[in-house]
Order: sequence, then structure tokens, then C-alpha cells
Amino acid sequence: MSRWVVGLDVGGSKVAAALGGETGVALARVRVETDLSSEAATLESIFGAVDRLLAEAGLGAGDLAGIGVAVPGEVDHRRGTVRRAVNLRWREVRLADRLRRRYAVPALCDNDANLAALGEWSFGAGREAAVLVYVSVGTGIGAGIVVDGRIHRGAGGAAGEIGHAVVLPDGPRCACGLHGCLEALASGPAIAAAARDAIAHGRDSSLRPPGTDPVAITASDVARAAAAGDPLAREVMARAAEHLAYALIFLARTLDPDRMVLGGGVAAGAGAAFLTPVRKALEGVAGFTGHALADRLAISELGEDAGLLGAVQLARTAGGRGR
Amino acid sequence: MSRWVVGLDVGGSKVAAALGGETGVALARVRVETDLSSEAATLESIFGAVDRLLAEAGLGAGDLAGIGVAVPGEVDHRRGTVRRAVNLRWREVRLADRLRRRYAVPALCDNDANLAALGEWSFGAGREAAVLVYVSVGTGIGAGIVVDGRIHRGAGGAAGEIGHAVVLPDGPRCACGLHGCLEALASGPAIAAAARDAIAHGRDSSLRPPGTDPVAITASDVARAAAAGDPLAREVMARAAEHLAYALIFLARTLDPDRMVLGGGVAAGAGAAFLTPVRKALEGVAGFTGHALADRLAISELGEDAGLLGAVQLARTAGGRGR
Repeated sequence: MSRWVVGLDVGGSKVAAALGGETGVALARVRVETDLSSEAATLESIFGAVDRLLAEAGLGAGDLAGIGVAVPGEVDHRRGTVRRAVNLRWREVRLADRLRRRYAVPALCDNDANLAALGEWSFGAGREAAVLVYVSVGTGIGAGIVVDGRIHRGAGGAAGEIGHAVVLPDGPRCACGLHGCLEALASGPAIAAAARDAIAHGRDSSLRPPGTDPVAITASDVARAAAAGDPLAREVMARAAEHLAYALIFLARTLDPDRMVLGGGVAAGAGAAFLTPVRKALEGVAGFTGHALADRLAISELGEDAGLLGAVQLARTAGGRGR
Repeated sequence: MSRWVVGLDVGGSKVAAALGGETGVALARVRVETDLSSEAATLESIFGAVDRLLAEAGLGAGDLAGIGVAVPGEVDHRRGTVRRAVNLRWREVRLADRLRRRYAVPALCDNDANLAALGEWSFGAGREAAVLVYVSVGTGIGAGIVVDGRIHRGAGGAAGEIGHAVVLPDGPRCACGLHGCLEALASGPAIAAAARDAIAHGRDSSLRPPGTDPVAITASDVARAAAAGDPLAREVMARAAEHLAYALIFLARTLDPDRMVLGGGVAAGAGAAFLTPVRKALEGVAGFTGHALADRLAISELGEDAGLLGAVQLARTAGGRGR
């Protein structure tokens, strides 16, 4: 009987693949460039990653029990279809089917936040949580919810899309057309925009040495300046962090998780300038069962690997080996 | 084998009890006054309701397969303990145990919002929903979540306590000590306070005939005045409704429910002045799977009976007859 599964994390620049055994962590990995020139080319990048992984491990498709894939976008998990993935320029791609046909093994796919949550629950900062909420703060903001080891996907597969919850009705306009979405207030691009905006309105900051163009400021720049003590950068970070904290409080009140894990590029890159205000806001709020909400907060242990390792775990489900 | 179950809804003024058959709706009901003079007296009111229900139906305790109880407060469902119920003046009451010992049948208890959600899912506006979110807006604000027919209670049994999610950080102080909790913005007392406050600050309104005291204004008064076209009352209602709508959007983004049911005294009593702005705010927001969020909104079909009928359904679980 097949003892191996493959997990894939498909991003706009790289496809990562990992080999998993019957239990536990990934045993081998590869990364290949994502070819975005066409839908077929991107699929070939994915196949290429699987083929290379198998070749390096000396295995064939017949040794596999299942494949799991994390995709950044809207995924119909049941049908195995990627409805829309902006970074891949995909619409309605029957990804699970394509993998199933090529390797003759069961395949499942899901969005990256859901699988990052499953990854942290299986191998990371969410181990043994009865109710886990994972929140990724990066270019976008998304959440994954794991209850009793199973992803809560919602009625239409769109659960966890908190980036487009309106948390400040008269806040800045979001790319989605609404105003004051969480993503327009606390994501990487929102942090960069808030800093640029303040500087354009005449605020002094080390972020803009005289004569330079504030248009180029990124969230990483703001994070670095905040770490170096720049008052504007610290203020911008703190405001973004507070918006995120109130969203975490809402999630905590709604779902009563015993663990909330923060991941994504901003949470990882901004460090204390971002995390301290988040923690501080949560410290002021008691849980209903005696635990302070701040005590339930943890930082991702898997970092960029969360989605990939969640995909390995999903692959075990595909092969009927896990939950 | 026993074919009957009893559901109870324990309120600060009345205890309602209903008899359920193997499936479907309640077959007989009684209501008795709640004696709040002591914990023992309140328990006697509950026993009295069960006894009268059985007597009227010509049944004995031996005919029962289970008892389910809805309690307004924090309930440890697993242990069957009411942790705290302010309206009953209870703390740490082992309610399920007391019922089990008296009637020699399995007994379960849960908080009223969870059981109202289960009631609407079983018999009301939430029938056949894969993911149901029920939100009660009355003296307090609470939610119940039903996924695949099961209540999501959270890791510590405190899921759904959205009344104390902070939705306007610089908003009015809440009884819980935080600022800008949903309950401080959209509950009955919050609506009354907002109207009183505006009048105290000199706003004109039919709510305050010259020479009268604004202290006496209630949410029902505001609802009536809004229905009659009073501009201040309509404004106050619309503002509360918008805060609720943004909370519903957050819940929808988080859980992706196919049905959201609004219940509770304010939602029922305020009518169009409250519901139209809620619907309008939701109409501006698309779901991720093509359905407008407004299409998923429904008004409670069971009204005040939602918790009672949910308790009947819970009793079936106690007796091992349902899910």
C-alpha cells in the first residue's frame, strides 16, 4: 500500500512541493519557478514540481496515496476547482481533476489560508487546539478556522475571508470597492499607503529623506523605520495593529478559539512594532472563561511553510489516511 | 421505549416548558412564574413547570427520554453547569445534574442564543442551512452558530458572545468595561440611551413632549416614534442597525453562512425602521460565491419560542435520539 503523499503550495513566483510520510513532517522538498505565461504553463510548473520531487526521492506516481494543493485564491474544495486566483491569472481551473488524471491518485485543493491553518494545527503553533483561528497578514488578510481538526469552509467555501469585513465604515476605500475593509487598514499595502499618505500631508519621517519620492515606500520600509524608532512609522504600525486586534477580538468572541495564530509577511516582518500593540489591545480584553484573550495568541511557527505543510496534511485526507 | 422529551426555557420572569415527540414540533406547553427568591426556589419553578407539563399530558417521568434547558447566561454545556446567569442571580448551578437526579433521565443545558439558533435550524427560518448564524438583538446581543446541524460552542463554551466584540473602539462605554462593544451600540438599552442622549443635548423629537423627562424613554418608544416618522428616532434606529449590519458582514466573511437569522426583541419590535437599514447595508456587499449577503438574511420565524424549541431539540440529543 502507498505510504507517501505530496503537498503543493502554488504561489505567483514559486511552486513548493513536499513529500510526506504516513504521519509527521515533510521528508523532501523542491521549489520550482511558477510559469505564468498561460494556464497550461502554470499547470506544467505544478506537474514539474511533483515530477522532480518524486525523481529526487526515487519514487513513482504509484507510490503516492494522495496529493494536496494550497492555492492563493477562491477554491471550490468540494469540486476541486480554483474559482479565481488573481496572482496565477486563473479562473475556473479544475486543478484536482488535472492532478488526478496525471498521477492516478486522489487529489484535493484548498485556499492557502485554510491550509496554513491546517498546517499550524497539525505541525505548528496550533497543535492540539480544539478551535484554532489562523490569521495571515501580508499583501492580503485572510483567516483559516480549524475545529476539531477539520477546516471550517462555510456553506460556499468562502469562510475566513475577513480581509473584506468592514471594520471602519468611513475608512479608506478598499480594492474591492467597499470602504474600511480590514485589508484596507492592516495589510502590507495599507501600512505602506498610510505612511505615504502621512508624508504627503507633510509629516516628518526618516522614511523620506529630503528630496526622495514617498511613492516607493513599502511595508518593509515602515517596519524597519519603526524598529529604528521612527515616530511616524511606529504610529502607522500601531494603528494597523489595533485594527487587526479588534478583528481578533471579534473572531475570539464569535468562535471562542483556544488558540489564535498570527502568520503572513507583515506579522513576521514587522516584529514588535506590530505585535506589541496587538498584544496590548488583547490584554485589555478578558475571555468569558477566565483566560485573557492575549494568552491565546501565538505567532506562526511554520512561517512560509504553513500552507505547504497544510497541503501535505490535506493530501493525507485525500488518500483517506487522516481526518 | 420512551417517546417524549421536555424542553425548557428559563427566563427571569417565566419558565416555559414544551413537550416534544420523537420528531417535529412541541405538542403541549406550560408557562409558570420564575421564583427568584433563592437558587432553590428558582429550581423549584423549573421542576414545577416540568411536573405540570407531565400532569397535563398524562405522562410520568418514566415516559421521558431526555430534558433540554435554555438558560440566559454562561453555560458549561459539557458539565451541565450554569456558570453565571445574571437575570436568575445564579452562579455555578449544576442544573443538568439536578434535573437528572429528580427525573432519572438524561438532561442537557445550553445558553439561550445557542438553543435559539438550534431551534431556528430545526423548525424555523434556518431549516436546511448548512451553516446558520442566528443573532439575537434585545436587551443584550448574542449569536448562535449551527454547522451541519450541530451547535458550534467553541473551546470554552463561549462562542457567539458577539455583544462584547469591540466594533467602535472610541464608542460609548459598555457595561462590561470596554468601549464600543456591539451591545453598547445596537442593543435595546443602547438605542434608548442614544435617543435620551440626543434629546439631553437639545435635539427635538416627538419622543420628548415639552416638560417630560427623557430618562423614561425605552427602545420600544424609539421604535414607535421611528414608525411614526420621527426624524431623531429614525436616525437613532438607523445608526444602531448599521452597527449591527457591519457585525453581520464580519460574521458572514468569517463563517460563510448560507443563512443568517435575526431574532430578539429589538429585531422583532422595531420593524422596518431597524430592518431596512440592516438590509440596505448588506445589499451593498457581495458574497464571494455570487450571492448578495442580503439574500441570506431572514427574520426569526419562531420569535420568543426559538430557545424553547431549541431546548426540545437539545433534549432529543440528551436522549440519544438526534444529533
